[in-house]
Amino acid sequence: MGRGCTLHTDFLLSKTVSFAYSSARHMKKIKVAQFGLGPIGIETLRLVAGKPWAEIVGAIDIDPQKAGRDLGKLTHLGKLRGRSVHARLEELLQQVKPDLIFHTTVSKFKAAFAQLEPIARLGISVVSSCEELVFPQLREPVLAARLDRMCRKTGARMVGTGVNPGFVMDLLPLCLTGVSGSVRTVQVERVVDAATRREPLQRKIGSGLPPREFRRLLKQGRAGHAGLKESLALLAHGLGWNARNITEHGEAVIARKNLQTKYLRVRKGETCGLRQRAEARLRGQVRIRLDLSMYLGAPNPHDAILIEGQPPLHVVLSGGVAGDQATVAALVNCAPRLLQAKPGLRLLTDLALPRFA
Amino acid sequence: MGRGCTLHTDFLLSKTVSFAYSSARHMKKIKVAQFGLGPIGIETLRLVAGKPWAEIVGAIDIDPQKAGRDLGKLTHLGKLRGRSVHARLEELLQQVKPDLIFHTTVSKFKAAFAQLEPIARLGISVVSSCEELVFPQLREPVLAARLDRMCRKTGARMVGTGVNPGFVMDLLPLCLTGVSGSVRTVQVERVVDAATRREPLQRKIGSGLPPREFRRLLKQGRAGHAGLKESLALLAHGLGWNARNITEHGEAVIARKNLQTKYLRVRKGETCGLRQRAEARLRGQVRIRLDLSMYLGAPNPHDAILIEGQPPLHVVLSGGVAGDQATVAALVNCAPRLLQAKPGLRLLTDLALPRFA
Repeated sequence: MGRGCTLHTDFLLSKTVSFAYSSARHMKKIKVAQFGLGPIGIETLRLVAGKPWAEIVGAIDIDPQKAGRDLGKLTHLGKLRGRSVHARLEELLQQVKPDLIFHTTVSKFKAAFAQLEPIARLGISVVSSCEELVFPQLREPVLAARLDRMCRKTGARMVGTGVNPGFVMDLLPLCLTGVSGSVRTVQVERVVDAATRREPLQRKIGSGLPPREFRRLLKQGRAGHAGLKESLALLAHGLGWNARNITEHGEAVIARKNLQTKYLRVRKGETCGLRQRAEARLRGQVRIRLDLSMYLGAPNPHDAILIEGQPPLHVVLSGGVAGDQATVAALVNCAPRLLQAKPGLRLLTDLALPRFA
Repeated sequence: MGRGCTLHTDFLLSKTVSFAYSSARHMKKIKVAQFGLGPIGIETLRLVAGKPWAEIVGAIDIDPQKAGRDLGKLTHLGKLRGRSVHARLEELLQQVKPDLIFHTTVSKFKAAFAQLEPIARLGISVVSSCEELVFPQLREPVLAARLDRMCRKTGARMVGTGVNPGFVMDLLPLCLTGVSGSVRTVQVERVVDAATRREPLQRKIGSGLPPREFRRLLKQGRAGHAGLKESLALLAHGLGWNARNITEHGEAVIARKNLQTKYLRVRKGETCGLRQRAEARLRGQVRIRLDLSMYLGAPNPHDAILIEGQPPLHVVLSGGVAGDQATVAALVNCAPRLLQAKPGLRLLTDLALPRFA
């Protein structure tokens, strides 16, 4: 213990032999399908395959190299042997109509919209890893309203989630403000050692590109981390703040020596990652600041949340929340909660408390 | 930055001049009343007085020393001047019917039930600091079911919340499992320097009592921290675990020198606080462990959450979440979310994501 204190003998206060209080939320299995069989999509299928509340009814991928292939072989899941990957949603629907689709194809809501609209029309719900879908109203308010109307009409529910955006830099800080009497500022810092992440992510952050080339792609929105502004918008919305003057800055991190990962090689002077920041001001003051560093070999990876207010809160997640595992888990865990929400294009703040499902 | 990396020149990625997306959740003010004018009740009124979504319509305290007194003077809130504290709910109802009552009177659900049942009968919702109400099914399943039925009949919603139980040792760890692909164990450690807390809490943890006397009171449930088992039950329920063999241990922490707080004096050899632990087993294995130390002068106060699973999560809240401020904030922030939930006696896991309101 501490200074000046000793412990009295420990004793049993009480004991409850058995306790079970179940609201039987998973009585009927949820029929799920997977749309998109990249690394995240395959891991999603593998995780959901172990859930007693889910029944996998099929998978879709528009890639001609994947369509028609055996789903069991692709996912290494014996129980999916003998099922083919469908090239189109219609093919799947000829056999079975899923209750919910895990959608893991694109980062931009505009591109996702074309895939999601026909699903909404059928009244099928969607949990998506599309980064911009975490707050689709930010960049595409018209499309978002259209998708929302369609969902309400058919009873479908749709939401975008993941670890970032969708948790570390938005939902978790918001949850912490649940015990805040006042909030002056919210600051989140996330440092990711990109060498531990999957290949697409290592490429997205510019690894191996000449800095000038990466900068050009970043400005065009063709590289970099998607969804930082969406995290900020979700945070601001959840706090009831009408954020003004949202800015986003990006910069390349340059390798000062040759680097080698499992997937690629970066030479000294080339890009080895990025630092991206988004800020929101209210009456001229910076009230939210999100600071993301993702580069190969970043030391001391962690997530830190600082909330200035009453009471002040300072939270550190040592090592940071591992990106890919956590994104897949966020998608899968979200499904039962989404189906309990009201129909419509939902925000994560509309759903019940995130938790393991 | 780290080893082997330099930063490229920072540049602006994008800028959004204005952004506002409001679901206009607080269009109509919520009429609130306060039941119980102890330190927590008074602070609740003071916090809610600044909320644009709330209108304070009155307060109730059964203490004859408080009933009839001026509410403005009691709370130091000018805008409540001229209003009397009511001795009974019926008196308040003759003037106005609140939408929601903040209830801060007792720790035991059995005692709270007698106060809450008439409120439920009237269709008025309640956010309560009653510790056992965080999971009332644990000790009083029959009373809980009865209160739940009454609420559903009249449209009332009721929930118990606070910082502990209600957040640090249950809701926050649950929220973290939202990104868990698997969860083996959940362990939470909370260390509170009780010297920084209010007088009733310093007394509840036995400060100044002979250890033998404190131990007797602890065993009788008349001292100690209330709600640790409820936290554990809420966690287990949220994870979908049917926890078996819940045990709770308590021990006195003994002062090894004379101690003096703002409120009381503790001599060497007397109790200066407690350590309380609750554990839940599943198939013989400890799967949840909550460990709470609250004593005068406890060094390094903090909250730590360790989730063994995929991915592993290790979260530390430096300094810990300040108890009284956070409890009051948890109560107030809960109100808008509770009113959006389905009628009934609710658990915090049924409500939308906790956040500043």
